[in-house]
Amino acid sequence: MMGSGMDDPVLAVTIGDPCGIGAEVIVKALASGEVPGRTVLVGDAGVVRRALDISHSRLQIHAVRLFEEAQFRNGYVDVIDPGTLNAEDITVGQVSPKCGQAVLAWEKVATELARQKKISAIVTGPVNVEAIGARTIATGNIYLLLITGPLRVVHLTDHITLRQMLDEVRMDNLVSLIRLTHRSLEGWGVAKPRIGVAGLNPHCKGPEEEQEIAPAVRKAVSEGINASGPIPPDTIFRYCIEGRFDCVVALYHDQGHIPVKTWRFDGNSSIHLGMPYISMSVAHGSAFDIAGKGIADPKSMATTMKTAAMLGAGKGFPTG
Amino acid sequence: MMGSGMDDPVLAVTIGDPCGIGAEVIVKALASGEVPGRTVLVGDAGVVRRALDISHSRLQIHAVRLFEEAQFRNGYVDVIDPGTLNAEDITVGQVSPKCGQAVLAWEKVATELARQKKISAIVTGPVNVEAIGARTIATGNIYLLLITGPLRVVHLTDHITLRQMLDEVRMDNLVSLIRLTHRSLEGWGVAKPRIGVAGLNPHCKGPEEEQEIAPAVRKAVSEGINASGPIPPDTIFRYCIEGRFDCVVALYHDQGHIPVKTWRFDGNSSIHLGMPYISMSVAHGSAFDIAGKGIADPKSMATTMKTAAMLGAGKGFPTG
Repeated sequence: MMGSGMDDPVLAVTIGDPCGIGAEVIVKALASGEVPGRTVLVGDAGVVRRALDISHSRLQIHAVRLFEEAQFRNGYVDVIDPGTLNAEDITVGQVSPKCGQAVLAWEKVATELARQKKISAIVTGPVNVEAIGARTIATGNIYLLLITGPLRVVHLTDHITLRQMLDEVRMDNLVSLIRLTHRSLEGWGVAKPRIGVAGLNPHCKGPEEEQEIAPAVRKAVSEGINASGPIPPDTIFRYCIEGRFDCVVALYHDQGHIPVKTWRFDGNSSIHLGMPYISMSVAHGSAFDIAGKGIADPKSMATTMKTAAMLGAGKGFPTG
Repeated sequence: MMGSGMDDPVLAVTIGDPCGIGAEVIVKALASGEVPGRTVLVGDAGVVRRALDISHSRLQIHAVRLFEEAQFRNGYVDVIDPGTLNAEDITVGQVSPKCGQAVLAWEKVATELARQKKISAIVTGPVNVEAIGARTIATGNIYLLLITGPLRVVHLTDHITLRQMLDEVRMDNLVSLIRLTHRSLEGWGVAKPRIGVAGLNPHCKGPEEEQEIAPAVRKAVSEGINASGPIPPDTIFRYCIEGRFDCVVALYHDQGHIPVKTWRFDGNSSIHLGMPYISMSVAHGSAFDIAGKGIADPKSMATTMKTAAMLGAGKGFPTG
């Protein structure tokens, strides 16, 4: 797994839309001291400077063009600024396609650093969807893992209808995802990850449980994976919260999103399984309405950065 | 609606399996002073007496054969005991078909009182499924409403597979349930109940939303019902917790059971919509393993009894 071999892994954080709350919550998260290891930001240095000002931070900025120039000194925030934007391009709280283009450029810089294994993980700051337009979504076998505290859920299927989903609940698909979940969590430092696999039907009483899900779990177990299931969908997420599993495999979008968003609406973050590096995001948006006011809550961002840093260092999920 | 016309409504509570924790949590709930109005128990007087003893209650027992003999005096618990059981039939913590038969007889007494409108609501004490064997489930258009604090969810479908469920998501079915939910909540004292209707597919993007669910909501609204939807399944339950709705209409078992059981595992109760009287249950079982020890937590039972008493009196759901 990426990063676990590094002596002193680095987390790269893109600041998200410069007209939103991204830089603000990131510098607050950094000031909280909760994020372990070394961090470098990617974005507009002026925006980060203003974020430090409005949050009355004691941190100082160290703007660089290249990753290699970062110094990681105490009391300083290294910002890789490729010079994509001018100050006049940025109006706090306003949608701007120029800013949207800059966001994508910064994400590309971070991705490239990850591909070159110069950094161990990426956190993507909150973006404005309107500003960036249609985003290129990674294709292939990429799966969304949502995290909120001890509740971690990876989804077999995503934005398809329930009727289409039913045809995707197949043993081969499930075995692949259970294997990928096992490998990913092990790579992140979770020893012998305990994986709970949700059933499809009420109380697991349906043909899919017998014909697809149970055989998939048996196959994974035969390969030495600590998988259990199918487990009734209405109890498995509570079991995960109580610590019986390190991760739940959910079969469809709402099966996993409902418990995550109902249990806790704040503090959620997401990570994509199947990428060649760790890439996390916060669940909240760029919140233009409160941007620049110094009131944005950095809790979700701090949790996400802490999690990415720990997973990137192969130290497992943060506890508590 | 039953009970709302009564000057001084009475709640009847069956004690559930006499070998379990039912009587214990019921007398503790009564002693808590949280249950408004008048209450009568239905069950074995000896079991209730022992429950009072082990919970060190100051309440005394007033055993009667008929409802009309109940006196509702301060400091006394009226127990309707039809004399179904002998002391030697009861072994705490042991499954007993005789006790199971008695449970069913007590439930019949309570049901008959409700049908005769002598009482305003029933709470059914926790039973042991093994002891009572196959239970006669009410047939017809009966819908399960789960309640945990502000989160209230009624289910369009229950124990059928997801594939079967898809064919039940039809405008006519939904309009009927929205109407029934509206009428029921109004009868219980919720003025202009705000009903949120969940979508079926991720982010409500599917043919069912357009062809069945949206038209059903429009039809209900045209009849003066305060219904909204379809609302994305992964956010509607959080909205309900935040107080935007009095009740959510969920389309399938796990869509509603997942948020209820994940948000709070304790303190849940259930009520069936479409019955001619109010009939509630606690979510927990008869807990033979801790029966008779005085340690069973009465919180769920107290909440359920309080809710049933308030709904029976047409005073709406308890707040807080």
